[in-house]
Amino acid sequence: MKFEPKDPDFETRVRASFARQQVMDLLGATMTQVLPGFVEIVLPFRENLGQQHGFIHAGVIATIADSACGYAALSLMPPSAAVLTIEFKVNLLSPAAGTRFIAQGNVIKPGQNITVCSGEVIAQQEHSEKSIATIVATMMCIKDREMEG
Amino acid sequence: MKFEPKDPDFETRVRASFARQQVMDLLGATMTQVLPGFVEIVLPFRENLGQQHGFIHAGVIATIADSACGYAALSLMPPSAAVLTIEFKVNLLSPAAGTRFIAQGNVIKPGQNITVCSGEVIAQQEHSEKSIATIVATMMCIKDREMEG
Amino acid sequence: MKFEPKDPDFETRVRASFARQQVMDLLGATMTQVLPGFVEIVLPFRENLGQQHGFIHAGVIATIADSACGYAALSLMPPSAAVLTIEFKVNLLSPAAGTRFIAQGNVIKPGQNITVCSGEVIAQQEHSEKSIATIVATMMCIKDREMEG
Amino acid sequence: MKFEPKDPDFETRVRASFARQQVMDLLGATMTQVLPGFVEIVLPFRENLGQQHGFIHAGVIATIADSACGYAALSLMPPSAAVLTIEFKVNLLSPAAGTRFIAQGNVIKPGQNITVCSGEVIAQQEHSEKSIATIVATMMCIKDREMEG
Repeated sequence: MKFEPKDPDFETRVRASFARQQVMDLLGATMTQVLPGFVEIVLPFRENLGQQHGFIHAGVIATIADSACGYAALSLMPPSAAVLTIEFKVNLLSPAAGTRFIAQGNVIKPGQNITVCSGEVIAQQEHSEKSIATIVATMMCIKDREMEG
Repeated sequence: MKFEPKDPDFETRVRASFARQQVMDLLGATMTQVLPGFVEIVLPFRENLGQQHGFIHAGVIATIADSACGYAALSLMPPSAAVLTIEFKVNLLSPAAGTRFIAQGNVIKPGQNITVCSGEVIAQQEHSEKSIATIVATMMCIKDREMEG
Repeated sequence: MKFEPKDPDFETRVRASFARQQVMDLLGATMTQVLPGFVEIVLPFRENLGQQHGFIHAGVIATIADSACGYAALSLMPPSAAVLTIEFKVNLLSPAAGTRFIAQGNVIKPGQNITVCSGEVIAQQEHSEKSIATIVATMMCIKDREMEG
Repeated sequence: MKFEPKDPDFETRVRASFARQQVMDLLGATMTQVLPGFVEIVLPFRENLGQQHGFIHAGVIATIADSACGYAALSLMPPSAAVLTIEFKVNLLSPAAGTRFIAQGNVIKPGQNITVCSGEVIAQQEHSEKSIATIVATMMCIKDREMEG
């Protein structure tokens, strides 16, 4: 799908917001691509992201998938908007084994209040890659002052 | 619901497995209660777990909720079993503001292959608390050698 | 949870809206209880609601669970509002065997735009009952003229 | 994705099972395409499938989406297997307005026990069509005698 961004500076705004997500520093995740309705986040493997069998924890996979979806949604919102996750569902297709994990979020239905996104997380090995998780997420467009809690 | 554990040493086994989840150290989460079919994990607030508005990232909330559910499921499994998350859905009810976050996972339907769990995450402030997220998760009981990926 | 309805005539309004859901007639479902933030719908077993093994189809179970949640949400909305389902997730805990199926929907987080509900479906046999499905649903409060599609 | 069916007679078996889903007769749904890992079900509009605003009820949309996913999963299972839905999540992207509704289910991760499917429902108008719903579903492969409940 092709989308027309409402804010010509969407990429700057998305990247600035991502830079404020301190947890991405903690995990070691970086934002690679930002297109209208599409965002990619990359996470290198690290042992201290692991669950009990040494794979990346499902919640860490969900974290980068959720941010990829949320920023895909934000890329289509007007300049003054903020984005908040209403809900997401993650299916883990295979254990998260790999050297790098690539989360891709896509808007599948933009809206003034509600934006629906889907995405996947791809695990890369040295000579192969495979999809290890899917996400479907519902995002809400809010004005900053609505966000007190 | 009351459950009869198949493994009398379920608590030791659950806590030992949790201790191998290195990401819990990274996040600062600890396991508090372990009962048959119920697990509680506590996460103190830290700025470097935050998203762009300073709340705890939804993925971090999902991480502790998923582990609480997964270990609630494992607590009812036989000694040789391991647990893997098939899928989970998280609804964020309010922004994750608070000093401490308490994830509680409950088995709602145990099974030989599939165990369904639900849970919630409670945010504590100094003098109040509220439920900020719900999770429903499907867990699979596997034997260790099935886990290659 | 105790909720204060914004519309004193909420029950009349909810029942009138349910009466317009023609599919409920087709399925044979009736609305039994309507309380602030809670709705119950009952569906007697009928062979022509079945899937390939003679159990009630999961989609039919979802239909009554979704309506129970949607009307639980509507019961707390102002008089002029309408409700639309954004998304729901259903976990099937056991095959839908029984003589009667009771869907109960509860509001767990009311909101001006978004209301989150959870519910379950209970299958009754002559001398027993059990929970066969859970639902978590996100509902949107809309004004009628927004609903063109 | 390309899949190799384990049962060369998969199409016959899938269509025979669908023919036993009595609820499909009640709704007026028919199975159109059956390919390895893909199934399509079509539902013409009928007023008595409606919700309170005259759109097709979200649960009916879920019913055809769930069956499309379940039979996509069954198409890849061995001859003796049966399929049961563990869970599904449906996002409603737009109200279900149209003359015909086409549910397409795809296997995204086949497995011996667990198969994950995704799908969508497309609403056709006379001169246009649009995607109105997405589904992600987890299916279990079972032997018939495990299905007592």
